[in-house]
Amino acid sequence: MTTIHEVAKQARVSVATVSRILNETGYVRSTVKARVRQVIREMNYKPEVTRYESIDSQTATIAMILPDISNPFFAELARAVEDAAREYDYTVILCNSDDFGFREKTYIHLLHRRAVEGIIFVSRTLGEREMTLMEEQGLPFVLLDRTPRIGDTSVIRSNNVDGARIAVRHLLEVGCQRVAHIAGPVELIPAMERHRGYLDEVESLSWFHPSWIVPGGFSVAGGMKATQLLLERFPDMDGIFAGNDLMAVGALKALHRAGVDVPFQVALCGFDGISVTALTEPELTTVAQPIEEFGKVAVSELMLRIKGEEVVSPVEELEVTLLKRDSTRRIQGVSGSGR
Amino acid sequence: MTTIHEVAKQARVSVATVSRILNETGYVRSTVKARVRQVIREMNYKPEVTRYESIDSQTATIAMILPDISNPFFAELARAVEDAAREYDYTVILCNSDDFGFREKTYIHLLHRRAVEGIIFVSRTLGEREMTLMEEQGLPFVLLDRTPRIGDTSVIRSNNVDGARIAVRHLLEVGCQRVAHIAGPVELIPAMERHRGYLDEVESLSWFHPSWIVPGGFSVAGGMKATQLLLERFPDMDGIFAGNDLMAVGALKALHRAGVDVPFQVALCGFDGISVTALTEPELTTVAQPIEEFGKVAVSELMLRIKGEEVVSPVEELEVTLLKRDSTRRIQGVSGSGR
Repeated sequence: MTTIHEVAKQARVSVATVSRILNETGYVRSTVKARVRQVIREMNYKPEVTRYESIDSQTATIAMILPDISNPFFAELARAVEDAAREYDYTVILCNSDDFGFREKTYIHLLHRRAVEGIIFVSRTLGEREMTLMEEQGLPFVLLDRTPRIGDTSVIRSNNVDGARIAVRHLLEVGCQRVAHIAGPVELIPAMERHRGYLDEVESLSWFHPSWIVPGGFSVAGGMKATQLLLERFPDMDGIFAGNDLMAVGALKALHRAGVDVPFQVALCGFDGISVTALTEPELTTVAQPIEEFGKVAVSELMLRIKGEEVVSPVEELEVTLLKRDSTRRIQGVSGSGR
Repeated sequence: MTTIHEVAKQARVSVATVSRILNETGYVRSTVKARVRQVIREMNYKPEVTRYESIDSQTATIAMILPDISNPFFAELARAVEDAAREYDYTVILCNSDDFGFREKTYIHLLHRRAVEGIIFVSRTLGEREMTLMEEQGLPFVLLDRTPRIGDTSVIRSNNVDGARIAVRHLLEVGCQRVAHIAGPVELIPAMERHRGYLDEVESLSWFHPSWIVPGGFSVAGGMKATQLLLERFPDMDGIFAGNDLMAVGALKALHRAGVDVPFQVALCGFDGISVTALTEPELTTVAQPIEEFGKVAVSELMLRIKGEEVVSPVEELEVTLLKRDSTRRIQGVSGSGR
């Protein structure tokens, strides 16, 4: 079978030139064009591309816009969305916004022009104007996790308040007397809700004071710094509820460096259920979000919208699960009954 | 300012119907269409979309096709490519192939139709036909890491053989007498090359036998299983070189569960330099790939091809760096001089 390389060689032009002629893009001198076409006929060259003509019509595409793919929670969520979309024969493309609104605007426009059928957003910065833009363009969308709800759009997120309360109650049940909170960024809804859940459990306790809450920026480094500060501030601290797993991992590192035993001196619980929590020593207790279900619900809601069904859904809150692991296994009796 | 919601309300239709009329898509009864158009004029409604008309022309896009975004090495590589592409004002969209050739074919076609200007591949399955397809379409591409080189395409990968040799020599230098290897999948070039580098260092040693090499599938679970097998098989094992960091993390877990002290009973070294290696206890020594440089080189090669310059480059091998950490810090003297 003749290849594009053989055609190029025979016609004494580059592969790029043959490609330009095949695709009718870019300038090629008419004498060259004639010569290449002659060679194509003589060699009976059939472009590979003709065999794939049918693929595009079968390939429906949705996009997912995320704040940061190198954050494992979002990477795992992206996989869940892909797996769910595949059930509907949809392909997913992923875009990082870094929570910059201007990038989201660019993506929305770019994706619409490129015939993407719908978008799943995880975004702090998505605003009313962008949603209006998508509605005008007839581009269906679904909001996840940290995206604020505006108008009658659907937002799917975990029950963060309840999850945080479960975490804090667990720490108290295993015998903690003074539980600190490492909080995520105040501008993020899940961080705020977990903060709220922590407060609901401890606000009325005699030892509590707002200085038991320290910001940790949802990062490993932030969790480390927050823990160092807490250790200096509260020598009597015996429990930490970190607002996400990355901060819990950072807290564990800081406690280890300070020679503090986990769980016996300080018990530690995170939030999210990302796989790294099973890799630390001790393994981290965490409030696991139902990442797979998240993907399924997001995709099925988007599919309803793509099919043109009118969906008016409120905030949908998915249930979380406490994964009890060694970082809170302080008391034999409690840990035994908890398994 | 009038919104699409106000228009819909005034015209007594849904937002979706107004959108269909604005975009001239889908069927809308002509009487309804006339009524909505009348309302649009009366209310002097200007779609938000008109203000974004100029965005698309400024937005050049490239794509990156990866085997699995939930593997932290690829997630970190994707960030590096994005950061590098931004320097050229390019937006990156990410696609997961799971190393399935048919998905790659679908993406190539889909991305070409959607005016993506070039593609960066990390793929075991990309074959000659797909490359021919892209050449015919005039779609520039660059190959990274595990992708086999065919014809005169560029492949950028780390110097895996040297990296593995450096790792094994380091283990021998810190006093290991019997170093096992947990190998990645035989069909992946980086895994094969690291295996080769291990052999280069130990093949001639008296204790060596091929049963010191155990497959671990490049995963945490695979690394755990391989380590359990090695512990049963070789009670005298005192060093492990894992072909990637995920397997090293698994090995560390298995060693910990078996009550084996790391580094004093068994020293452990991984490969890749992903951030999770700094989160374990002890932190893992690893051969770090230059992930940021990877992104820069890949994007700058792709840009040359997009500009239409004829690039014929051989395999480009980037240099790796041994990060000495506590998982191999066995002998005070050696660890001191090694820093």
